[in-house]
Formats: sequence, C-alpha cells, structure tokens
Amino acid sequence: MSQDPLVIFTPSGKRGRFPAGTPVLTAARQLGVDLDSVCGGRGICSKCQITPSYGEFPKHGVTVQGGALSEWNKVEERYDRVRGLKSGRRLGCQAQVLSDVVIDVPPESQVHRQVVRKAVTQRDITMDPATRLYLVDVQEPDMHEPSGDFQRLGEALRTEWGIERISAPLPVMSRLQPALRKGKWQVTVALHKGHRDDHHRVLDIWPGFHEGRLYGLAVDVGSTTIAAHLTDLVTGEVTASAGVMNPQIRFGEDLMSRVSYSMMNPGGAAEMTRAVREALDRLAAEIAAEAGIEARDIVEAVFVCNPVMHHLLLGIDPVELGQAPFALATSESVSLDAAELDLTHLNPAARAFILPCIAGHVGADAAAVALSEAPEQSEDLVLIVDVGTNAEILLGDRRRVLACSSPTGPAFEGAQISSGQRAAPGAIERVEIDPATKEPRFRVIGSDLWSDEDGFAAATATTGITGICGSGIIEAVAEMRMAGLVDDRGLIGSAEQTGTARSEAQGRTHAYLIHDGIADGGPRILVTQGDIRAIQLAKSALYAGARLLMDEIGVDEVDRVVLAGAFGAHISPKHAMVLGMIPDVPLDRVTSAGNAAGTGARIALCSVAARAAVEKTVRAIHKVETAIEPRFQEHFVAANALPHATAPFPNLRGVVTLPDVRFNTGGGEGDRPRRRRARD
Amino acid sequence: MSQDPLVIFTPSGKRGRFPAGTPVLTAARQLGVDLDSVCGGRGICSKCQITPSYGEFPKHGVTVQGGALSEWNKVEERYDRVRGLKSGRRLGCQAQVLSDVVIDVPPESQVHRQVVRKAVTQRDITMDPATRLYLVDVQEPDMHEPSGDFQRLGEALRTEWGIERISAPLPVMSRLQPALRKGKWQVTVALHKGHRDDHHRVLDIWPGFHEGRLYGLAVDVGSTTIAAHLTDLVTGEVTASAGVMNPQIRFGEDLMSRVSYSMMNPGGAAEMTRAVREALDRLAAEIAAEAGIEARDIVEAVFVCNPVMHHLLLGIDPVELGQAPFALATSESVSLDAAELDLTHLNPAARAFILPCIAGHVGADAAAVALSEAPEQSEDLVLIVDVGTNAEILLGDRRRVLACSSPTGPAFEGAQISSGQRAAPGAIERVEIDPATKEPRFRVIGSDLWSDEDGFAAATATTGITGICGSGIIEAVAEMRMAGLVDDRGLIGSAEQTGTARSEAQGRTHAYLIHDGIADGGPRILVTQGDIRAIQLAKSALYAGARLLMDEIGVDEVDRVVLAGAFGAHISPKHAMVLGMIPDVPLDRVTSAGNAAGTGARIALCSVAARAAVEKTVRAIHKVETAIEPRFQEHFVAANALPHATAPFPNLRGVVTLPDVRFNTGGGEGDRPRRRRARD
Repeated sequence: MSQDPLVIFTPSGKRGRFPAGTPVLTAARQLGVDLDSVCGGRGICSKCQITPSYGEFPKHGVTVQGGALSEWNKVEERYDRVRGLKSGRRLGCQAQVLSDVVIDVPPESQVHRQVVRKAVTQRDITMDPATRLYLVDVQEPDMHEPSGDFQRLGEALRTEWGIERISAPLPVMSRLQPALRKGKWQVTVALHKGHRDDHHRVLDIWPGFHEGRLYGLAVDVGSTTIAAHLTDLVTGEVTASAGVMNPQIRFGEDLMSRVSYSMMNPGGAAEMTRAVREALDRLAAEIAAEAGIEARDIVEAVFVCNPVMHHLLLGIDPVELGQAPFALATSESVSLDAAELDLTHLNPAARAFILPCIAGHVGADAAAVALSEAPEQSEDLVLIVDVGTNAEILLGDRRRVLACSSPTGPAFEGAQISSGQRAAPGAIERVEIDPATKEPRFRVIGSDLWSDEDGFAAATATTGITGICGSGIIEAVAEMRMAGLVDDRGLIGSAEQTGTARSEAQGRTHAYLIHDGIADGGPRILVTQGDIRAIQLAKSALYAGARLLMDEIGVDEVDRVVLAGAFGAHISPKHAMVLGMIPDVPLDRVTSAGNAAGTGARIALCSVAARAAVEKTVRAIHKVETAIEPRFQEHFVAANALPHATAPFPNLRGVVTLPDVRFNTGGGEGDRPRRRRARD
Repeated sequence: MSQDPLVIFTPSGKRGRFPAGTPVLTAARQLGVDLDSVCGGRGICSKCQITPSYGEFPKHGVTVQGGALSEWNKVEERYDRVRGLKSGRRLGCQAQVLSDVVIDVPPESQVHRQVVRKAVTQRDITMDPATRLYLVDVQEPDMHEPSGDFQRLGEALRTEWGIERISAPLPVMSRLQPALRKGKWQVTVALHKGHRDDHHRVLDIWPGFHEGRLYGLAVDVGSTTIAAHLTDLVTGEVTASAGVMNPQIRFGEDLMSRVSYSMMNPGGAAEMTRAVREALDRLAAEIAAEAGIEARDIVEAVFVCNPVMHHLLLGIDPVELGQAPFALATSESVSLDAAELDLTHLNPAARAFILPCIAGHVGADAAAVALSEAPEQSEDLVLIVDVGTNAEILLGDRRRVLACSSPTGPAFEGAQISSGQRAAPGAIERVEIDPATKEPRFRVIGSDLWSDEDGFAAATATTGITGICGSGIIEAVAEMRMAGLVDDRGLIGSAEQTGTARSEAQGRTHAYLIHDGIADGGPRILVTQGDIRAIQLAKSALYAGARLLMDEIGVDEVDRVVLAGAFGAHISPKHAMVLGMIPDVPLDRVTSAGNAAGTGARIALCSVAARAAVEKTVRAIHKVETAIEPRFQEHFVAANALPHATAPFPNLRGVVTLPDVRFNTGGGEGDRPRRRRARD
C-alpha cells in the first residue's frame, strides 16, 4: 500500500490521491471542490467545515477506517469550546488526510450553495455573489523595495486568492494603512467583482479577521410601489423586506402621465428622479434598522424597473419613451456606485446594478422575469405574462424567446372601474356567485372570512368595504359569466333575463350589485357594463399580445402559462381563462410565479454569473413591437368576446360551465353582430 | 500605364497605389499615415489639410503633374470662403488622387505631431492625448431592433473609429438623447482613453460638429507653490499658466512639519487635503478665466507632487511617510474623476491622472522628472538632481536607472540661513566678489541691475533689499571661497587674514558682510559661519546621495549632470561645483532642465502612451534608501569640505581659482583635524 490516500468528496464525487498529512481544504482546492473559506486556511473563519464519513462505501470502492483524518487539533478544540462545532464536523483547514476517506461538504460550507426556493415551479438560486470577504496577510513594507501598501495588498490577493486586478475608491484607500497596522498586516477586505471583467474593487477593509456578514438590497422599483429585500450575500436568505409607495405618484399615477409631467415641466424629470432616489435612500435606512444591521454592511443593490422608472432612477429624462420609436437612452445593464444614485444609507462604496432593458416598453423588470423564469432554458413552450398597467409578455423555449408589451391599461389594477380601487385593506379581492341563486359572496383584503361567514362584519368593521381591486373585478366578471349573468359578448342581462334583482338597469345597460353598504354608510359596489367593457379591452390587449408572439413562432398553442407580477400572484387561473385573458391550456399548466421581477432582482444580487447571463438572454430575445404590428389590432378586436361554452377554450370544458346565454339590451351594443374569432 | 496612381506621403515616406478617385484621407488611413480628422472625412472639421507637391521627385522616382489631384470641390470652396484655406492646401477628405502624387502632411494636420521644445537639451513631446473629439453619425432607433441610443453610439464609434468599448457617467448619459436629436443623429463626443486598457469614457457630448478645443491642466503641486499650465490637447501648446502658494504652508513650512501637524491634530490631514483641493479648484477657475475658455473645455488634469503632497491631495493621511519604513499607501499611478478631488471648475466629467511615486521619499515629481529627462533612454551616464528641501536624485542610462532622495534640509531654499528668505522680490539672488578687493556686488529679484550699476537704488526702492535666497547664498559662499574669504574647510577668515573689513568677528567665528542696509532702514545682510555650515550640510547630503548611487552602479564619474527643479534652474553650475554640490564633470556637461517635474506633467497630459511608459520606467527604477545605508553617512562626512584648488575636482582647474588658504579661528572649529575625502 504505497499509494497515497484516496480522498472522495461528496456530493460532488470529485476524488484524488494526496500525500498523508494534506489538509482537507488543500485537497478540496486542488480538486476544485466547492469548499468555502474566508481566511484562506488559517483556522479563523470556520467556513470550511466538513464531515468525514466512516465505513464501507461500495459505490466509491473504499472502506474508511477510524483515524482516516488526523486527531482534533488545538484550533478545532478552541473553536468548539468558544463557538461550538456540530457533532461530526471538522475544520477542513485543520483536519489532515491520513488514509482513504470520504468527505461530505455540507451545503453551508459551499460557496456556490443552492438556495432552495419553496414553490416547485421556481428554480433554485446558485450563490455566486459579486461581493465577498477575503482575509489576507500583507507583506510588511521594505525600504529596499518601496512598493505601496495597496500594491502589496494586491500582491497578497494575487498569491493567496488568485485575484488579478484590484482598485479602491479614495475613501477606502485612505483607510488602508491604519487597518493594516491595526491588524498587524492582516486585513479582511470586501471585494466586488465586476460581471464583465476580472476587475475587483475593494469596497471595504477591516483590521484582522472580520466576522461580519455582507448584505445586498434587491429592489423592485414599480410605478406604484417600491419593494426592497435585504438579502444575506452568503446564504441568499432574505433578512428583511420593506416597501413604500413610489413618491412619483404625485407627479402622475401611471407611467405616461409621468412622462407628460416631464414634458410639460422644465426640471420635472429631475424632480421625479430626486423623489424616487430619496424614497430609496429612506427605504434602505429603514430596512437596515429593521434588520438591526449597519448601513456599512449593505454593499450592493440591484434594481429592476420598467423603462420609465429605469430612466428616472438614472436621472435620464424619459421623454423619448413616451413617443415612437420609444428609444431607450441605454439598453444594457448599468453598473455604478450606489452613491451616484444619491444613496447614502448603504456602505459608502456600495455598488449598484440595474438589469438591462429589453425594449422601450419592455424593461429591466421584464428582464428580471426572464432571469427568474428562464424561458430560454424551458423544454416546453412557456408563455410568461407580467400583468400590470402594461403587460410584458415573454414566449419561448430553449430555441428562441420573444417579448412584447401590451397596453392593457390600468383596469387590471382596479383603475377605470366604477367601484375600482387599489389592492388595499377594505377592497374586495375574491368573489363567488352562486349559479343557482345568483347571490354573491366575497372576501376583502385584511380578513380571511367570506362575507357570508360569521364574524365578517366585525372583521371588516375598521376597514369597511371600500371598493373592488384588480383581482376582485376579474373574479367578479368571470363569476358573472359562469353564473349566466353575462353573455359571451360581455353583456349583462336584465333582472328579467337573469332572474335576480341584483341586476339593476343603468340607462340602456345593466349593472350587477355585489354589495350594498349604504345602510352602514358605505358605498354600493356594482359591476357595470362599462366595467365589463374595460376588462374586455384589457384582456383583449393581453390576449392579443400573446397571440402575436404565438403567430411569430408559428404555433396555435402554448404548453404552459406563468402569471408573474404581484398582481399575477392573486389572479385565479380559472377566472383568468374564463375571461379569455390567456390562451387556452390545461388549468394545471397555469402557474403563478409571484413577484418574478423581484425574484430576478434577488438572483442578480446573489449571482454575478446571473448578471452576465441575463445580459446574454436579453440580447438574444426577439422583440416584437405591438404598436406598429397590424396583426395586433386584428387579434385585439377578435379577442373582445368572452370564451364560449365550447370552442375555442376546450380546456375549460368539464372545469367550468359557461352558460350559452345571449342577452339583447334594447337595440344597444348587444345587437351588433358577434365577431367570430379567427380560430372558431 | 494600367497601374493605379502612386501616392507618396511626406514626411513619413509611406507609399501605395490606389484606384483613381480615392480621397487622400482614405489613402492615408490605409497606409497608416498620421493624418488628423475629427469628422471622419465629412469635410467638416478641416483637420486633414494636406499639400500636394508638383514636379520631378527623383528621390521618390515620380513626376507629379498638374491635375494629379481632383479639382477643388464645393466643400473646399466653401471652407476657403468662410475660414480661409492656406495657399496650396487641400482638404484630404475631399481631394481625390487622379495620378501619381506626392503629398505633404503639415505638422498641424498630424495627430501625433511633435511639440518642439526650445532648449536643445529637452526632448520633443509627441502628441497622443488621452482625450480627443470624434464626430459620428448614429443610427436612428428602430422599433424592431430596440437597442439604446447609447448602444448605437457605441456601434457607430466601433464602425467609424474602431473604438471597442465605451462607457459614460450618468450626467453625460442624460444628455445623450437630446444631443442626438438636436444634432440630427450626428454628435461630437469627447472620448477619454484609459492608459491601461482600451476602455473609452464619454466625457462630453455636443450636437453635430463641435468646433471647440479641449484643454488639460498640468499641475505641479509643490510644498510651497502650486503651478498649473493650461495646455491645448491638440497642439500641446501652453495657453495660460498660473501659480499660487500652497495654502498648506499655514500648517507647516516643510513636509515633515505637515506630517507632524497631521500626527498631532485629529482631522489635520483632512484639513490640509481640503486646503490644497480648494486652492487647486480656484487655480483652475482663474486659469480658465485668464485663457478665456470655459471650465467645460478642461477635460483632464495631471498632477505631479512629492509623496506627502500626493497623499494629502488624495485624502490619505501622510503619517506613514514621516517614519521608517516610509511606506506609501499606493505607489502606482492613480486615474480618477477630477470630481473625486473636489475639483468643480473643470468639465464635470474631467479625469485626473497622478503620476506614480518611486518610493516613500521619491515621489510623483521625481517620476515626472524621469519622464521629462528620460535617463532610461540616455546613452551616457546622467545624474539628474531635483533640488528642493529634499533632493531627489536619479542616476542612470539605457541599462539601468537608480533613484534616491537625500535630506538636504531647507538651506538651499534660503531657510535656516541668518539672512535667508524665500525667492521673492527683494531677495539677493546673484552675488559676485572681486578676488582682489574682496568687495561684493549683487542682484536682487525684481531688478536686472547689479548693485554697483546706475539706477540700482531706484530699481530696488519699492522692494528693498530684504535678504538672500537659495541661489544667492550658494553664489555667495562659492564666491567667498573663490575670493579666498573661506578656506576649504568652510572657515571664514578674519579681517586680518582676508584683508577686508567686511570680515566681521562674531564671537569666535567670523561673518562676511554683503550689504548694510541700516542707513536705509533695511537689514545688514551677512554670510555667517553658521550659514556656511548649513550650506555644507546641505551640499554634503546632496553629494553623498549622488555618490551612493555612483557606488551602486560602480563608477567614480558621471558623464553629465542635469539640475532640475525651479531652484535648479537658477543655480549656476560653476558655483554649484565650487561648493562640491555635484560630482566633478566638465562644466559644459552641467545643464539645467528647468522645472522638469512640470514638464513631465505636461508630457503625461499630452500623451497617454507616456503614462504607460512612466509606469514602466518607475517600476524598473532601482530605489536606494539613504536613511539606512551606512555608506551614505560615510560619504556625507567625507563631503563636508569644500573643493580644494586641485584634486578632487580637476574639471574646476583652469575655470576657477580656488585659493589655497587655511584659516585658524582661535582654537575653534578650524582647529579640528581636516577630514580627508575618501578619494583624496
């Protein structure tokens, strides 16, 4: 047995022979096994914990005997005494290989650990943060070789960590010499790696070994709300989340009114830029306070947003985005100092990354959805819809991905609806209508009780019942359709036609009463004919966009549908399909990705490789501009009707009943010939 | 004669055949001839002017006939009408080659033109500015290919100018879209090229063709004064110069007292940083106003300074430079935004470049001297001395260059001299002493008259005669030596010994009276024994540093000596050698390089290649630390004496007379045994 001991690492399966006495960390590094270390094997950081396995391993063809690793040494004993080492664990930099051994690297000892996401439809995140801590011993200065301390730091990082090029902003540079001397020529540096080159930037420096954690902010800058997730850059876990209203709302509710504000008011764009940056800065301060960490520990921020928010965040007047040809000032991702965005409640040297925009109407938020849902890796043809004031639509698979945006208008967000309101406490968010009695029941945001359940009145006493939000109006209209209150042209029947007094006449059309709060001093909440027309316009636009992309690929069907966006998370797939918002697929093939844009931001935050990947993906995406595509108009008109009991939504059959009713409303709209869909 | 016409360019001699009709600019580009163009051949910028030559060219083997180039076209006619085209000139982008032709590219049409410097000892500067203007036509946006305007700008620069990678700071990015539209998709951009990579930064942007010029500031940040030269980045000419006192003087006259100030006062370094940055910012504003240009047109600044000034400019506490091992925070060159140095009176995106430091005592100013004087290119062995409070000394040739600094102290600047003062109006700067009469005459700063010339009293009435500056004290001591008033040990003889009543007793030593201003209410200006001791210490240090480097190379002689520094410009080589400040060389081999550090700054400003070159030079320089070198002490002690009539300064023989006198001063210093020089 003159052979060197065999070392097998699990779960990677990497193996090799090493001279007896080789530290496990050294073996791992030589084999390219993913074993973490901040201190580089000095027994300080404890990141390189491993678990030796003993016994027979027929699969690996080895028998591991006791004593395969060296005895616990003083470093491990001290660490166990002071901090506690889990049973069976060893420090990889201390334990030496003595004979054949199988070594397990637990997930928390892997740099590129998987962050498992809960929903089955969601991909895991592989950690690959741009900013990491490194402990180095720097050569002391030598009068005969008078290099700068910074150059010797660079040399140490090159030798110990293989890092080629470093730079440091002046304020960090000015702290280098005291830190080196206080740390007795040992310092921990936070290094940020660019996603386009191997250039590393020193963001911070501490004397000796720094125990702290680094955090990043994943921020979704929406037109209405801004949501930020403070994320641990080692574990990928979200430590704290916070949201604020986008203060730009005072300049205009929707994107186009903000663009108009900028066009009409000199300095208007700068005003909006200031507003959003101030809000972001406050949000950063609040979230750090909530998590109980120091601003200094937040070393990165990643932003996703639509193109108008993108330009305003960067201080670029969005006026060109308000008119054809909707030219972006810059489409590629932007890396810059967070300070350039006036963010003061982060580490002073913190970096910011803004995802690329796909097109003038399809922004960094859509790029983030693409990063989260990875249509370019999908085996089957997936349609991804991010529903908002504009719907961003992605369609594709491994072979090709297309994107467009569709002007759905704000109906899906409860705007331009007679009793519509934002999703806020008091808003009706769920609706059911009994097909027999035509009586509704509903739930409001802020309570888990249905309106016909005991205690509902008490539960909603503080908020009241104030209106109906986006998901509520979709359910209401779909339920009205299923209950036979609305026909496939979208007409509401009269009380006589529907057999319920809740069907009230409003001029030449009708409206359906969901809730009468007059007695309690609240509003009467109705779904009017106008509301249904607004929903029809919105859903036609959404459907037409999807159809346009399907035409471009040359298919009549997709394999699955993903609803993204905070709103998408609340839409019931059944109701969406009853309205014909999305193409016909089996209902179990419709999933919600939740806030996929926010998830994409978090992925980009946790993985520098993902930043490069999303740039590549976005470049490869084929953009379709709905505004100049005649077929979009055709599809839009054709999609106006609601699905019928049979064709063209066969997947609804057996799931829901769509009554084959047809109402006439006194020679009004209902009398116009029914447009037939192209596929009928 | 079916061959294409032959085109020969002078002065390069490059030649090639091109199809009839080829524009001269196109031919030049294909041959790699250095012919300038900002507009890329659009007939707008007029930078590509050339002069065709006609007649017999036996040297080139061609006969050029009239009509070798196409007739003047409308573009040239209009240009001549509006701006005037010099006789014989053509626009290279308009004139087409029709038959064999010899074309001269005048210096002003060359990008890499030579900026000829006046002094014969100085090298010319080859223009290669980091920042240049480029005119480009950018593709209009296309909804079907929705790239950003910035990406299309990048594409245009790639196609038209071969520039691979660009970036832009946010404020420039925010001006891109309006500029493109105002310029009808034609813009002029100022691009700054890094000296380490091919990355170009957009510093500014103008709609259409921008006529303006770009400027840079070459700044020499001295401990006492700050001098700035506004330089045209196309011609290399200095447009305006200005200087101010370094406001840090209030924190300490010399470097070490500023380091002490920083050590004793918390925040002291930051205070000094603020002071120098404010002074630089004011200086930039003043110089732009003087030149009548806008701050926006100053796109670059290059700084040279000693290590302490270097650190304070960058905001780094210089405390480590005040104690062994004199560790620099950073030794390499620094490229950064001028805004990071709080400079507001430049283009907001202006870049700054600070030359590398050679060692803790040998700064970016010495690197600039190396760049200006290029010892690494010298065929003969050159000793370059930059005289100041510290003397920086370079010695070398093509094979190797050595550097050290020597602690001369401030005597050469008139400090620690009994009647010493800064070089300012009223200070005695030149001295002559008649060897026969022992009577002095002198000149003061502010007047060209000698003190024994008519009108001297009137000419100096306003300034008075206030003291003696550095060059004055050197000449005074050297003249005293030549007049036999001082012996080779540095002792001043008594009135009896010297035969002049100007030799006054001061305790046990003597002093020599240069000027008695008492009657006019002015001072009595004497050279005391203490003054001579101070000059001996300073010159010994300087000489010892030079000798140390000579030892290191293994030589006893150098081929030539260059005196650099503002002070070096005023030292008379003869007097310097009479004092033994510099090693013995033929007097005509001692030259002054003037403010070589400032010249080096200007070279780095005008040439991005020079920035890379000086980094390489500095890395290759071998540093010798005088503070820890025992031989330095030996040389220092041995060099205390003044040169004797014969050895060891044979080159003085026949040039000056050094009387072989020897004084005793009543058992005082003069009685100690004369130390013999090692080479005696």
